[in-house]
Amino acid sequence: MAQTPRVVIIGCGFGGLEAARALARADVEITLVDKTNHHLFQPLLYQVATAGLSAPAIAAPVRHLFRTQANLTTLLGEAVAIEADSRCVRLKDGALLPYDHLIVAAGSTHSYFGHDDWAAFAPGLKTLDDAFEIRRRILLAFEAAEKEEDPALRAACLTFVVIGGGPTGVEMAGTLAEIARHTLPGEFRRIDPAQARILLVEGGARVLQTMPESLSQRAREQLEKLGVEVRTGARVMAIDNAGLEIESASEALGKGLSSYRLDSRCVIWAAGVAASVLGRQLAGATGAQLDRAGRVIVGPDLSLPNFPEISVVGDLAAAHSHVPGQEPKPVPGVSPGAKQMGRQAAANILRRIAGQSTAAFRYADYGNLATIGRNSAVVDLASPLGPLRFSGYFAWLFWLFAHIWFLIGFRNRLVVLIDWASAYWSKQRYARVISNIEPQRREAP
Amino acid sequence: MAQTPRVVIIGCGFGGLEAARALARADVEITLVDKTNHHLFQPLLYQVATAGLSAPAIAAPVRHLFRTQANLTTLLGEAVAIEADSRCVRLKDGALLPYDHLIVAAGSTHSYFGHDDWAAFAPGLKTLDDAFEIRRRILLAFEAAEKEEDPALRAACLTFVVIGGGPTGVEMAGTLAEIARHTLPGEFRRIDPAQARILLVEGGARVLQTMPESLSQRAREQLEKLGVEVRTGARVMAIDNAGLEIESASEALGKGLSSYRLDSRCVIWAAGVAASVLGRQLAGATGAQLDRAGRVIVGPDLSLPNFPEISVVGDLAAAHSHVPGQEPKPVPGVSPGAKQMGRQAAANILRRIAGQSTAAFRYADYGNLATIGRNSAVVDLASPLGPLRFSGYFAWLFWLFAHIWFLIGFRNRLVVLIDWASAYWSKQRYARVISNIEPQRREAP
Repeated sequence: MAQTPRVVIIGCGFGGLEAARALARADVEITLVDKTNHHLFQPLLYQVATAGLSAPAIAAPVRHLFRTQANLTTLLGEAVAIEADSRCVRLKDGALLPYDHLIVAAGSTHSYFGHDDWAAFAPGLKTLDDAFEIRRRILLAFEAAEKEEDPALRAACLTFVVIGGGPTGVEMAGTLAEIARHTLPGEFRRIDPAQARILLVEGGARVLQTMPESLSQRAREQLEKLGVEVRTGARVMAIDNAGLEIESASEALGKGLSSYRLDSRCVIWAAGVAASVLGRQLAGATGAQLDRAGRVIVGPDLSLPNFPEISVVGDLAAAHSHVPGQEPKPVPGVSPGAKQMGRQAAANILRRIAGQSTAAFRYADYGNLATIGRNSAVVDLASPLGPLRFSGYFAWLFWLFAHIWFLIGFRNRLVVLIDWASAYWSKQRYARVISNIEPQRREAP
Repeated sequence: MAQTPRVVIIGCGFGGLEAARALARADVEITLVDKTNHHLFQPLLYQVATAGLSAPAIAAPVRHLFRTQANLTTLLGEAVAIEADSRCVRLKDGALLPYDHLIVAAGSTHSYFGHDDWAAFAPGLKTLDDAFEIRRRILLAFEAAEKEEDPALRAACLTFVVIGGGPTGVEMAGTLAEIARHTLPGEFRRIDPAQARILLVEGGARVLQTMPESLSQRAREQLEKLGVEVRTGARVMAIDNAGLEIESASEALGKGLSSYRLDSRCVIWAAGVAASVLGRQLAGATGAQLDRAGRVIVGPDLSLPNFPEISVVGDLAAAHSHVPGQEPKPVPGVSPGAKQMGRQAAANILRRIAGQSTAAFRYADYGNLATIGRNSAVVDLASPLGPLRFSGYFAWLFWLFAHIWFLIGFRNRLVVLIDWASAYWSKQRYARVISNIEPQRREAP
């Protein structure tokens, strides 16, 4: 009798989680490796960073999620190399995991476009630890302003700059405006938090560039209504511990380039993502190609050209959607894409075990949504009758219920709903806790 | 017209919080200084350490608690010295806070009885950061056991030692037993978490020594029923990164002293408290005396002998309860004691402002309670008809509602109640999140 096929899945984000679930009833032995002990519901991570939710509300222990899936073993560890020729994954602690089929779902991290020194001054938002660091900086900026005597320095403490006008940047900027205008007023004696400036800096011509232009425009209007200064066509040239330098292609055309400085004690990076470094190692080991963002270029069935037993899914994969009779289209880096890729990679493993040929990946695009703040969001849904686009209060309600629906685990959904209901009515944010006032890492000098 | 009297309160634990509230309607200018941004509900901190509650559930932002108290300014900062002669408090950042009346409620920290090097191997539980560190060690010990091949090392990973049989030690040991027996089974593939050993090591003759002996005995029985090995008369001689050395006055009398080693990867310190270091500085500046635990010995009205404008309350104070016609009795280091002292110190400030003489402190003892685990607790209530003592399920229900009742802020109460109801029915603990697998500090070499 043949040995049960061994499947190793690296990463327990949306892609890895769905792949593991899709194999729940298969006659395989799965090892799911992740360097954290939890699946993180990344779309709500900005809520942890802005003190609206506690970490456990959006993070579920991987081991608990899979407790009843008997064909799966959870392993806490960091995959550092894929030894494709000997079909092994090497972990940081030196352990080797042999596989017959491998799904690499190691995700992405933030990219500073070659300026890694900016990380100290403008933390990005990918992990719970990132969220705690950003929460610490936001809350301490208001505390520092309350103590500061010098008006210019006090203004710098009350200037918050979010770099990057994608969904995360828009959500962060909108929520910061809410905190300054609705949560904190009345709590300070020397400053008025409502005087805080929130700037959203975007290099391109508009925010939410993956959305239709009309919704970008609506998002901008809603941000401005909340009191966010939106600066498009503004490139970040330098960041230091006191602020940043911006070069602006003036919005009134013909005025050319101008550059200026913004003094800020709290700069948040929401501008770029780069594929996990594991992608580069995998390319070296298999001869696979990387795209400009460092993502691994996969074949139509999500596997690697010369290694059909290795699939790459999620943010680490440069994948295309294949619809018969149409040009292949790139799959966007959103959670539904990662989930669908995970399921497809799992299905293809079962086909290969059964001796069948694998199927090409086809992305089902249900649309796109982003929230801006209290009562405001933009929604762009795909429907058989054409795109359905709306914004404002109903878009916000739609966004709210969609996110709660997709949260992992019933208890989390209930707690998040209660937290939000209470935050909505009280305008309060209950997770305003800094566990350690001293910086734990990456402090600006 | 005379200047409004300035009151400075150092510390926002139970004592400082109650003092500030008691002055809410007084014509004074209060500055409340704390080195964290939150009031911590310490009696439930062990629940954060054992992944039952999230941090925000038991920590309320100080600034928010006092937002409507117009005579109070919150200041985030650490008091490092009291300059009693010039009536100023010096903060770590160099700022000076002048006062007319001062309440020092700086609390306590854990004490390793001169063995400060043990802190690296056996973290104590005083702050949220401590709780996260203990949570990390508990959860990672099970993960390490799952990966360990060597049976002896695996057994050490699955051996948890709690040092100190006071309320915190009893709660920690009972909850660890629950986690091992009820929460984790079924989630691992190579180990059986129910095989974990939980030891509670106490130097004295019984656990919960401030309780009547009958309740200590009931607590011990309930711990043993949960699977905790209780070792009384056991003194810790050494702790290192692989375990600890214990010297035991054998429980069978006449057998004399014996010493032995326990191999453990997770040792938790719940044995001793020491007064905040600010006490020593205050004694030097004022000539006040310290007791053996480093607490400041205060007069009957909680003020210092030569400095009536300085009061010390809470864990930092060695105070006595004064009942006319009776011997003064020491006030126990529990939260009701701290709260009552805080209110008394505030009332005495108002008396002094009004030109009246101050009143002696009288401690109202409502009793004592401790929980052991699921469905078990011990309660010792003072009543006009004599002490009311009970244990088991009803004691647990009593403990539960008493703690939820005293939690600060309505929302927290509701969330804690939901968390507990869900944990009770599912036997799950939802806050099993480690934000950073790598140690942030104090790691054993």
